Amino acid sequence: MSEEDIVDPTHPRYESLMIRKKVAEAGAKGMLADSAMIAHGRGEAFDYLLGEQTIPSAMDATKEAAARLVKAKRPVLSLNGNAIALAGQDFLTIASQLGCPIEINIFYRTPERMGALIGHLKMLNAKLGLDVEILGGIPDARIPGLEGPRGACQSEGIFEADTILVPLEDGDRCEALIAMGKEVLVIDLNPLSRSARTGTVGIVDEVTRVTKNLIQLIPKKPAPTKWKNDKALQSALDHIVETMSDKFN
Amino acid sequence: MSEEDIVDPTHPRYESLMIRKKVAEAGAKGMLADSAMIAHGRGEAFDYLLGEQTIPSAMDATKEAAARLVKAKRPVLSLNGNAIALAGQDFLTIASQLGCPIEINIFYRTPERMGALIGHLKMLNAKLGLDVEILGGIPDARIPGLEGPRGACQSEGIFEADTILVPLEDGDRCEALIAMGKEVLVIDLNPLSRSARTGTVGIVDEVTRVTKNLIQLIPKKPAPTKWKNDKALQSALDHIVETMSDKFN
Repeated sequence: MSEEDIVDPTHPRYESLMIRKKVAEAGAKGMLADSAMIAHGRGEAFDYLLGEQTIPSAMDATKEAAARLVKAKRPVLSLNGNAIALAGQDFLTIASQLGCPIEINIFYRTPERMGALIGHLKMLNAKLGLDVEILGGIPDARIPGLEGPRGACQSEGIFEADTILVPLEDGDRCEALIAMGKEVLVIDLNPLSRSARTGTVGIVDEVTRVTKNLIQLIPKKPAPTKWKNDKALQSALDHIVETMSDKFN
Repeated sequence: MSEEDIVDPTHPRYESLMIRKKVAEAGAKGMLADSAMIAHGRGEAFDYLLGEQTIPSAMDATKEAAARLVKAKRPVLSLNGNAIALAGQDFLTIASQLGCPIEINIFYRTPERMGALIGHLKMLNAKLGLDVEILGGIPDARIPGLEGPRGACQSEGIFEADTILVPLEDGDRCEALIAMGKEVLVIDLNPLSRSARTGTVGIVDEVTRVTKNLIQLIPKKPAPTKWKNDKALQSALDHIVETMSDKFN
């Protein structure tokens, strides 16, 4: 164990450091591309600017996402490596609440990484006593407009879904899913990202906080509203701007 | 070569992706702690908010740092793994311009990582035909107030220096160096970080842009001014706030 592995519980950013540890461990297990650690760091910076908390507009967006997932005919949770590393167990719980599949859909697809991720989710499925269907291993359809392995998907999963929850999604793929006419529910800490902006609902919050909130909200079956995504994103930006204004004056 | 290794030169964020590639390669060579990739991602987020450019207040701060390095009796460049990975060659050029040593000072110190970093700088020294002194391998002094290996330093380097350039420095160490009465010139993309705030001069800019600017500025021997660090940091925050305000209205 290196000095780096020890997280002091009294550290003011203990939660954030424990989350970071999960990403590092998943990396060591071969579940992540190199860029996953960098992507996590980018998220950390935005979370720091949000005060590492669920701000009111993010809670509203989470409630809206819960409503749309509950109402959907064919919901799917589309998970990448970071989402599985950070909240695999919670996503299985959510899929079980909704009675829907999880589809693993990673940007840098290799058989080794797919195998590690499927294995990890199956292990958690067994541990939780759940029987959530895990798709993505045998893609048989394509998301139109995406080149190469990034466009691969499964017909009974993402391809036929009407509503997709995509935590930490790439901007291109988010746009392509919207172009397919789907409702895309995005979790992204950067309110300026293309994913947050083009998604039907953009939840500007840290993924483990969102999954915990979704698990509470889904059983309450909230009703969808006429969601104004731009308004929620501007509210997140305003929160960050508030943190920065007149800091040194 | 994986899909991840190929960077498209027409990508709008090509420079940023090439910089990221350097960090990933240094990681593969054993020069970096796991957290280095995450730290790099945090920096990327702030650089994105700055528009991946040297803003005017950052150029002023770089000029101020150049002035103070030129005027210093015993300047030292204190480099960690990320700084060496990103701009090792430029830092050797700067040390050569100033006739000062480089001291390697890493947060998670292991003999393997120190060896890899010293070897890398010695290789670049030879490649450039320079003879810059590389310190840090045999620490014989301590920075007061820092526990464990983080406080280790060398007497003819950091310990006796009057002016230290610290790119990407940890907040605790920055404060401890200031407490020793030194001028501390910080490079940090987060204008809210403790390092940026407690340093004598905080340069809110990406390290490879800063080194290129320093190499141009040092030969001009600019004169130090009465530097107001808070004003420069607020100016960086204002730039970010500008990016975020009324984005969606």
